[in-house]
Order: sequence, then C-alpha cells, then structure tokens
Amino acid sequence: MDMMKDAMSSSEMPMQGMDPAMMQETLEALSACMQACAMCADADAAEGMGRCAGMCADCADVCNTMMRMMLRMHGWDMQVMSSMMQTTIMMARACSAECKTHAEMAEHCRMCAMACDQAVMAMERMMGSMSGAMPRA
Amino acid sequence: MDMMKDAMSSSEMPMQGMDPAMMQETLEALSACMQACAMCADADAAEGMGRCAGMCADCADVCNTMMRMMLRMHGWDMQVMSSMMQTTIMMARACSAECKTHAEMAEHCRMCAMACDQAVMAMERMMGSMSGAMPRA
Amino acid sequence: MDMMKDAMSSSEMPMQGMDPAMMQETLEALSACMQACAMCADADAAEGMGRCAGMCADCADVCNTMMRMMLRMHGWDMQVMSSMMQTTIMMARACSAECKTHAEMAEHCRMCAMACDQAVMAMERMMGSMSGAMPRA
Amino acid sequence: MDMMKDAMSSSEMPMQGMDPAMMQETLEALSACMQACAMCADADAAEGMGRCAGMCADCADVCNTMMRMMLRMHGWDMQVMSSMMQTTIMMARACSAECKTHAEMAEHCRMCAMACDQAVMAMERMMGSMSGAMPRA
Repeated sequence: MDMMKDAMSSSEMPMQGMDPAMMQETLEALSACMQACAMCADADAAEGMGRCAGMCADCADVCNTMMRMMLRMHGWDMQVMSSMMQTTIMMARACSAECKTHAEMAEHCRMCAMACDQAVMAMERMMGSMSGAMPRA
Repeated sequence: MDMMKDAMSSSEMPMQGMDPAMMQETLEALSACMQACAMCADADAAEGMGRCAGMCADCADVCNTMMRMMLRMHGWDMQVMSSMMQTTIMMARACSAECKTHAEMAEHCRMCAMACDQAVMAMERMMGSMSGAMPRA
Repeated sequence: MDMMKDAMSSSEMPMQGMDPAMMQETLEALSACMQACAMCADADAAEGMGRCAGMCADCADVCNTMMRMMLRMHGWDMQVMSSMMQTTIMMARACSAECKTHAEMAEHCRMCAMACDQAVMAMERMMGSMSGAMPRA
Repeated sequence: MDMMKDAMSSSEMPMQGMDPAMMQETLEALSACMQACAMCADADAAEGMGRCAGMCADCADVCNTMMRMMLRMHGWDMQVMSSMMQTTIMMARACSAECKTHAEMAEHCRMCAMACDQAVMAMERMMGSMSGAMPRA
C-alpha cells in the first residue's frame, strides 16, 4: 500500500520539499521498528533484561508517535517535526546499542537492533532531503 | 481539572444519558491504571516476570485507548464503546489477578492490582448507568 | 520483514494453534489500517467531518493496541485477546461504514474504508483458525 | 495516588538527582495535557479547524509517550530523556500558541492552551532541577 504517495500526490498542501517515496519508506521503517521493539521488550522481560525491555518499550512508543505525526500532515510544524525526528533517531540509536550488547545470545535483540538501524537510516535520509524545509533545532 | 464536566455541560451533543462526574471519575481511574501498569511492566521486566510484564503492558495500552475513546465524543458509537469497555474490564481483571499472585513480594504489583481494581469498579458503575444508552454486546 | 514467522518458529512457547503466516498478515493489515485511519482523521478534520475524524482516530488507537497485544506473546490471555479482537473487528467495521458514506467525494475515506475492510478480513480469518484455542466471549 | 513518590522512595535505583514530588507533578500535568488535547482535537475536527486538530492530536501522542518514558525507569537514558523532554516542551508550546488563536471562540481551545502551558511549566521546572543529571542536547 502506497498511501503516502497517493495522499501526497492528490493533496493540495504545500509538501515543503518532501519526497513521497522517501516518506513512505520512512513510515515503513518506523512501523517495522515499532513492531520489533514491542516484541523484543516482551521477550527481554521474560529473560530479566530490564534495561533492554525499558529501552525497547520506549523506542516502540517514540517510533509510533513519530509515525503518527508524519501521517497528520495538517498538524505539521517543521521545528517540532525536526526536533521529534532527532529525538527518534537518538532513541533508536540508543536502543540498537543496548540490543547489540546481547545480540549474540538473543535473536529478538539481533532483529530489533537491525530494525532500529534501518529506521535511523531512513530518518537520516529524510532529514537530509528536508534540510531546506526543516530547520535543525 | 474537571474537563469532562465542563466539556459536557457546555456541549450541545446529546450525552446519551451519561453522568459527567462519573465520566470524569472513570477517566481518572483509567489514567491511574495506565500509569501503574506502565511502571509495573517496567519493574517486572527487571525481575524476569515476563507474564506480568506482558499483561501490564497490554493493560496500559488498553486503558489508554479506552480513555482516548471516551474523550473523543464525536466518534462515539455506543456498540463499539460498550464492547471496548467490556474488553477493558476483562483486561484489567486479568492483569489484577496476575499481579495479585506476587503482590506480597512486589510493591509495584500490589499498587498495580489496586489501580486495576479501581478502574474495573469505575467502568462497571459507568456501564450500569449507561445500560439504557449502551447496548450490551 | 517476517518477524512474526521467525519469532514464532524460534520460540519455545506453546503457540496455541496459531499460524505464524496468518499472524504476520494480520499484523500488516492492522498496521496499514492504523496508518490509513490516522491520515483520514487528519484530512477529515480539515473538512469539518467530525464524526468520521473521531471514529478514524479511535480506530487507529484500537488497531494499534490490538497489534501490540499480538506482539507481546508472554502476556497472551486467550479470553482477553478474543474480546479485544472482536472489539477491533467491530470498530473497523463501524469506521469503514462511516468512511463509505463519503468515499465518493473523499479519496482518503475510500482508502481508509478499504484498509478497514482488509483488517476485518484478516482478523476474521485469524479468529476462525483460533477457534479451538480462543474461547468466543 | 502518589505512585511516583512511593516507587522512587522504595526503589534502589540511583534516581539521578530527581525529586519524586516534581516527577509526580510533571506526570499529572502531562496526563491532563494529553486529555485536554485529545478532547480539543475531537472538537476542532467537528468545526473544521484542521491545523488545530492535527497539532492537538500530535501533542496528545507526544505527551503520552513522554509520560510513559518517565514511568519506565529501567529504560532511562538521560540524553534521550532530555531530548524527548525538549521536544515535548516545543510541541506543547506550539499547540498552545495555535489554540490561543481561537481561545476566544472555542472553550476547548482555551482549556487546552492552559493545560499545555501547565505541562510546559512542569517540564521546565524538572529540566532545571535535573540540569546536573541530564545533559542539554
């Protein structure tokens, strides 16, 4: 489903220099990251990995909120969006780093770290392309 | 803050037989339950209590969604609201039962079970008072 | 990404008769529905369609919670899961019905109704296959 | 309910210089802001105020995520927390500013702006007191 592409091409809103394909890719990376983090937090808890569980649960919520903010185009404020995207990048990096410390023994952590890294890459590409439209905080 | 009371008294929407004070009380019980569940899930994870962590994380999300649905009055569909409220009651009861099995050794579980029980009581009162307006599923 | 398939095949939890491919498909349908609903609610609001906006915002939250509950396998309680799935089906049907009343004039409503219908179908298939494992409420 | 105070006083985690009473106050302000924003977004939508609806829906999600991150103490990473808190302050300020442009004609906007302002004040006090523990981004 290419919702973002369809929505943006049919929209009359000024899209502030954003590439719909890049938006779609970022949404998918955030959604995959959110799902991997929710599963990882659940598995961590059963193994007593409290720090990883907490960070993954946080990362799931942050990615979810970032995704919803991207989808609500009428509410876009470029400064807020930019700040939230930088927070999401920082969160996903921290979560990935934590997961990597036990990726050898826990498959869910290996998959979660990968999903976090992909989300970071997608968001960084998007920040780059928006640099004209979005002020760095 | 008595938002619900103010909003409902100034609203021109038919409130379908609901008592604003009861709504407000239910919102507060759901909010407290969500917070207690989020904290309990976090603490459980550090102690390797995977089932309790999973149920508390679920209960936090369910209570949060129930609360938001109550606040979005223009979207109310009485059948959906009633079904969601019954699901929330069932979720909070299951979470409370799980927490009670280790309430003696974990203070966060004791507090979480109490918050769940209070949310159940508030929702049951509300379901009772709405029985005219809300169809039982 | 086939997280659910990998996670379930490597898991030692009794999966209670669930087919991982069907789980994955349902997760994807819920995620797409959540995204379509969030976008539709945003567009509705700009057009003054308050009822549709409220129902879509509710449906986005309900799908999101359902998805997270599916991902947290250690917290599964079959009665609660079944009740939440029935609520989600009811919510997505109500949201689809509302969106269809203005699908001719609003592309976002047409897409949202389609995403809701696909989520309903995926969940109904899953409920069917789980009928041995999950008690009907 | 003074969950945070109880939890922090019984916790053996290093609390990194945070005052439990201030934490509790901030949680309550975030919860009230989330609720006011969800209600305001719903009412805005019925009145065709698309920008206000989008910003309020975003602010509800951001406050909710901030609140949950505060409650999950095992996942605390001071850099991420600080960045998220700054984003939440920026979001609540932007939402308040938007709401104030129609606070005269819409009671829900007046209440929402007030709740946003209180959340900003609580978070700023907390940022101030944590300045030793939390690095500014």
